[in-house]
Amino acid sequence: MAEPLILVTNDDGVYAPGLRALFDAVRSLGRAIIVAPERDKSAVSHSLTMNRPLRVRELEPDIHTLDGTPTDCVTIGMNKVLTRRPDLIVSGINPGVNLGDDISYSGTVSAAIEGTMYGVPSLAFSLAGESPFDFSTAAGIAWKLASMALTFGLPENTLLNINVPDKTAPEIKGIRFTRQGRRVYKNAIQETFDPWGRKHYWIGGGTVHWSGGNDTDEEVLRGGSVSVTPIQLDLTNHAGIDFLKKNWQM
Amino acid sequence: MAEPLILVTNDDGVYAPGLRALFDAVRSLGRAIIVAPERDKSAVSHSLTMNRPLRVRELEPDIHTLDGTPTDCVTIGMNKVLTRRPDLIVSGINPGVNLGDDISYSGTVSAAIEGTMYGVPSLAFSLAGESPFDFSTAAGIAWKLASMALTFGLPENTLLNINVPDKTAPEIKGIRFTRQGRRVYKNAIQETFDPWGRKHYWIGGGTVHWSGGNDTDEEVLRGGSVSVTPIQLDLTNHAGIDFLKKNWQM
Repeated sequence: MAEPLILVTNDDGVYAPGLRALFDAVRSLGRAIIVAPERDKSAVSHSLTMNRPLRVRELEPDIHTLDGTPTDCVTIGMNKVLTRRPDLIVSGINPGVNLGDDISYSGTVSAAIEGTMYGVPSLAFSLAGESPFDFSTAAGIAWKLASMALTFGLPENTLLNINVPDKTAPEIKGIRFTRQGRRVYKNAIQETFDPWGRKHYWIGGGTVHWSGGNDTDEEVLRGGSVSVTPIQLDLTNHAGIDFLKKNWQM
Repeated sequence: MAEPLILVTNDDGVYAPGLRALFDAVRSLGRAIIVAPERDKSAVSHSLTMNRPLRVRELEPDIHTLDGTPTDCVTIGMNKVLTRRPDLIVSGINPGVNLGDDISYSGTVSAAIEGTMYGVPSLAFSLAGESPFDFSTAAGIAWKLASMALTFGLPENTLLNINVPDKTAPEIKGIRFTRQGRRVYKNAIQETFDPWGRKHYWIGGGTVHWSGGNDTDEEVLRGGSVSVTPIQLDLTNHAGIDFLKKNWQM
């Protein structure tokens, strides 16, 4: 087998320490090439930039940046920067978790969704905790799971959403396969006023409640293990088709 | 039962004719209230604006707009504009289809995902064809399916992604429940140069191929029927967990 080719991206921008930690971690597994956004693109979800041209710049050998989103980075990275199809795409390491329903907002996860659409095994990495983040434990986990993905493969049309606890390597209890939990925000919109006294709303804050059970991403992470959730591209509720056929009297 | 309360939004902005067609269609089913973006927010996916405050303006009675994304409109509409929990959320009518894997880029569909996260039955409507669009047939379909959703309900944690063919009402062959198809783009990145001769990439164009079979959204729509795809919030590949437990020798 030729040396594996690994595309590395994120949503926090090319200068983010989590990206560099991931890059350094996977370089021992093959040739790693970064194509990452110039600036922080957190919470852009699966946005694709189609209303303007994008420019790729090579900052250092194997480190490229473009003025777009994580999804732009994957599609342009795969088609225009890399000279052949990559064997693996890794995204992150995001400073902060991507759990439950919130993954649909995540640029980190969206990059892995885009890679999976191209049929390339793709992993999204996020680290629990608060600033300042120490990415060293998560980088070790990333190395291990990237190695596993290269060796054993992934389920078809499926990416892995990986969340690492804010712990040292010896403190981590294990690596567990999980399902996506449900999150409920309470009072997550604040009210504020502009200098002219007009009311504005600011999304954020509030409290979060989780549900779903003890094999969900959130519970496993809180218990001190690494959570590995297989996420599929097919969003169809197949049982829902039966529900509709049976109940809707059209 | 009290008069149903229906939140109406889209991703093309408050002045889009497809939004007004949808608003007029569902007004006969209850009290309809628009909360829609000020400007075109196509392809913003499930973006949430958290880095600045948002301002809601009432343009006319029951027609509100805010300087954010479709997801912002649903969360602020539900929590700050409506005086009670809505019975239904409708998004669209988008000029242009939202099919297969592309729904993960769609602002129209993301608004319905956000509504579903709040536990409110949510429908996303898109119309096939090209500009100029005639929304009259799709508006009739929207009225019918919104009425069905209010009467018979939806599968749990599931929204409906609805695509209407570019046909007159008598030409439409029927309404069918479908699953999400797979799309593959070819050569969907163009190269261009800026005035200083530097190469840029522009995402778009190319050709699209579809796969998946004759019960997919794309095939059913192409055959002249309305496609109704139930889309679930849980993205976990549950069978994938078994694959990983069996195959990954950790």
